[in-house]
Amino acid sequence: MICEILSIGTELLMGQIANTDAQYLSRQLSLLGITVYRQMTVGDNPDRVKEALSAALKRSDIVITTGGLGPTEDDLTKEMVAEVFGLEMALHEPSRKAIKARMKSINHPITENNYKQAYFPAGAIVMPNERGTAPGCIVEQDGKIVAVLPGPPRELIDMFEKQLWPYLQDRSGCLITSRFLRIFGVGESLVEETLKDLFHLGSPTLALYCGAGEVQARLSVMHTTCEDPSPILNPVDEEIRKRLKDAVYAEGLDNTLEKTVLSNLKARGATLSLAESCTGGMLTSKLVDNPGASDALIEAHVTYSNESKIRVLGVREETLKEYGAVSAQCAKEMAEGAKRISASDYAISVTGIAGPDGGSDEKPVGTVFVGIASPDGANAIRLNLRGDRNWIRTLSCQNALNALRLLLLSK
Amino acid sequence: MICEILSIGTELLMGQIANTDAQYLSRQLSLLGITVYRQMTVGDNPDRVKEALSAALKRSDIVITTGGLGPTEDDLTKEMVAEVFGLEMALHEPSRKAIKARMKSINHPITENNYKQAYFPAGAIVMPNERGTAPGCIVEQDGKIVAVLPGPPRELIDMFEKQLWPYLQDRSGCLITSRFLRIFGVGESLVEETLKDLFHLGSPTLALYCGAGEVQARLSVMHTTCEDPSPILNPVDEEIRKRLKDAVYAEGLDNTLEKTVLSNLKARGATLSLAESCTGGMLTSKLVDNPGASDALIEAHVTYSNESKIRVLGVREETLKEYGAVSAQCAKEMAEGAKRISASDYAISVTGIAGPDGGSDEKPVGTVFVGIASPDGANAIRLNLRGDRNWIRTLSCQNALNALRLLLLSK
Repeated sequence: MICEILSIGTELLMGQIANTDAQYLSRQLSLLGITVYRQMTVGDNPDRVKEALSAALKRSDIVITTGGLGPTEDDLTKEMVAEVFGLEMALHEPSRKAIKARMKSINHPITENNYKQAYFPAGAIVMPNERGTAPGCIVEQDGKIVAVLPGPPRELIDMFEKQLWPYLQDRSGCLITSRFLRIFGVGESLVEETLKDLFHLGSPTLALYCGAGEVQARLSVMHTTCEDPSPILNPVDEEIRKRLKDAVYAEGLDNTLEKTVLSNLKARGATLSLAESCTGGMLTSKLVDNPGASDALIEAHVTYSNESKIRVLGVREETLKEYGAVSAQCAKEMAEGAKRISASDYAISVTGIAGPDGGSDEKPVGTVFVGIASPDGANAIRLNLRGDRNWIRTLSCQNALNALRLLLLSK
Repeated sequence: MICEILSIGTELLMGQIANTDAQYLSRQLSLLGITVYRQMTVGDNPDRVKEALSAALKRSDIVITTGGLGPTEDDLTKEMVAEVFGLEMALHEPSRKAIKARMKSINHPITENNYKQAYFPAGAIVMPNERGTAPGCIVEQDGKIVAVLPGPPRELIDMFEKQLWPYLQDRSGCLITSRFLRIFGVGESLVEETLKDLFHLGSPTLALYCGAGEVQARLSVMHTTCEDPSPILNPVDEEIRKRLKDAVYAEGLDNTLEKTVLSNLKARGATLSLAESCTGGMLTSKLVDNPGASDALIEAHVTYSNESKIRVLGVREETLKEYGAVSAQCAKEMAEGAKRISASDYAISVTGIAGPDGGSDEKPVGTVFVGIASPDGANAIRLNLRGDRNWIRTLSCQNALNALRLLLLSK
């Protein structure tokens, strides 16, 4: 099956945002064994939307549109789909009710144009939007399919995963199953060296991707919907784990380092507290992003100033004077303090220089110390990171989580 | 002048990378007053490249291609440009020499296909590549222009800035200046209603965009390089501010809500502390993302459990018993506690139900209370938010920042 992606939005043509929707859809479609021959972007202009849609439909079996579903006059994707197929626009009563209920629940006055989002080409399969007001739809006619998705990525991804993916899988009949092994603490080149001979197996295919301080190894196999891909994937999966050992921390794109740490803690019935300086709440926020984080996480303190480190965490004034706030000693005392005041089993601390200012020859920007306190005592490690402020903070969080993960593994 | 961008690369159609080149070029072209009507992406396939190139040239004055300039057989952008214009490929001697010197300097053996990168459509203006091996080129014929750029963003950006921008500015003679007004606390439909008549002024043009809980109004005006756009932008800018009042919180895409709050605090020499429950460090992290946040931010406490709220922040046990942790009373006491222990001038607290579990009829998922303590006392507001866990947390942060912003404005 051949597919084209048609992105609609003047903000894309003005370069205000990158077209991550097209990337996301292309990747998903390739997993479904659906070939994407073209991506196209046009602005909120009726003639050009119509022209692009007609041309795409001539060349391909499926056209997926993104954007142009808002309540304003500019938003005209559904109307143009109807015109191209020669269909009327029809009111979809459940959507009208949902819009009304939603606007009421958030205390927003309803204006007439809100209801524009409840009209669809007659006969369309409506896809409710669980994360926004604009539903999408699927229109089928004469063997051609147009799927209409909202532009905001979080709405689009949710709708694609839950509603369009099953529909397309049903049509396509084949699948690419991928398994992602997540690796932390070994650089990409070294992973590549270590797995060198596994890149030429034919099936499964192996590819490496880089994330924040981590490497992801993707194993993929194409098969029909009734075949089980495990017998092809498992032996290579096992071989990779054998070679990379503890560096493989999880399987699957959803299983982040923070989830791994939280579930390890939970399995032990252990609790955690945090003391952050340069990461400024980012580490805590990454953990709290996971439902149920409160099972393990007791509390966190963002102690930016020296005064705050002393008063809240009980870091000793002499430590700060002698070694400075960015030091192994301070990181260790921050972790000990967080553990003590919260009576948690484990504590992690992060203190460092995220930049852009504040670096010195001895401790340049990117110098970060991670402290860990456990029932067996406390210690600290030094990281020498590179990048801008936000990247250094991100890598600090990942390395802190990994340090705790390895400690828990060793128990 | 009308332009289309044609991106060439199978990796884009597979979704392996986002098309940031198209975004970058679109933004730059819009600044030059060159209108981009279409972005198109095709794979490394000669027929589809040629077809897309011909169609784009029929519709527009300029086509800018990206990618397909490598040394392999797959890379065929220049060859297809030559075919479409009916030109031969000709060896460009300076490029051949540059390639030879470069390969020698990095000790790479030269293969015959390296020299493929020294051939261009006859008569082309060659643009040397200062950051890679593949030069670009400009071909002009019968009033149509094709500019050919390499795919890797750092090569493309360097070549565009230094070589293609001056060429295009010379051709275009005009610029577009845009101004973004950022609006919080008024929904998109209501902003549109309120500004209805301003959408049809001709110049400046007005468009709305949605962010996390906010709306951005973009004013744009096209003018020659020697004209000042302010007299056209200012009256409409003022009119929007007059109608939307305090809801306009900043100007410019770089000026976020957190930056606005930090600079308001700094201007007053005031300090801030935070107490987070459901947002779990996200609010602090957003603030700390800005260099210099420590000028205003003293510390933050993520108090997830009731015990932690009592012990760290001094929330009264009776308050939690009577009203629960997700209540205006608790939010107020959390803010008061954070302010007291840090001796800050202001404090914000957030407590709520981010989901997916934990909601009730009276307090469904999305019920969030924001507390604010100031030198004049403390109070709390209730938010009724919708979305998944992460979205509710994001909107909670934005609303908390906005509440503090409005309080500071009222002083």
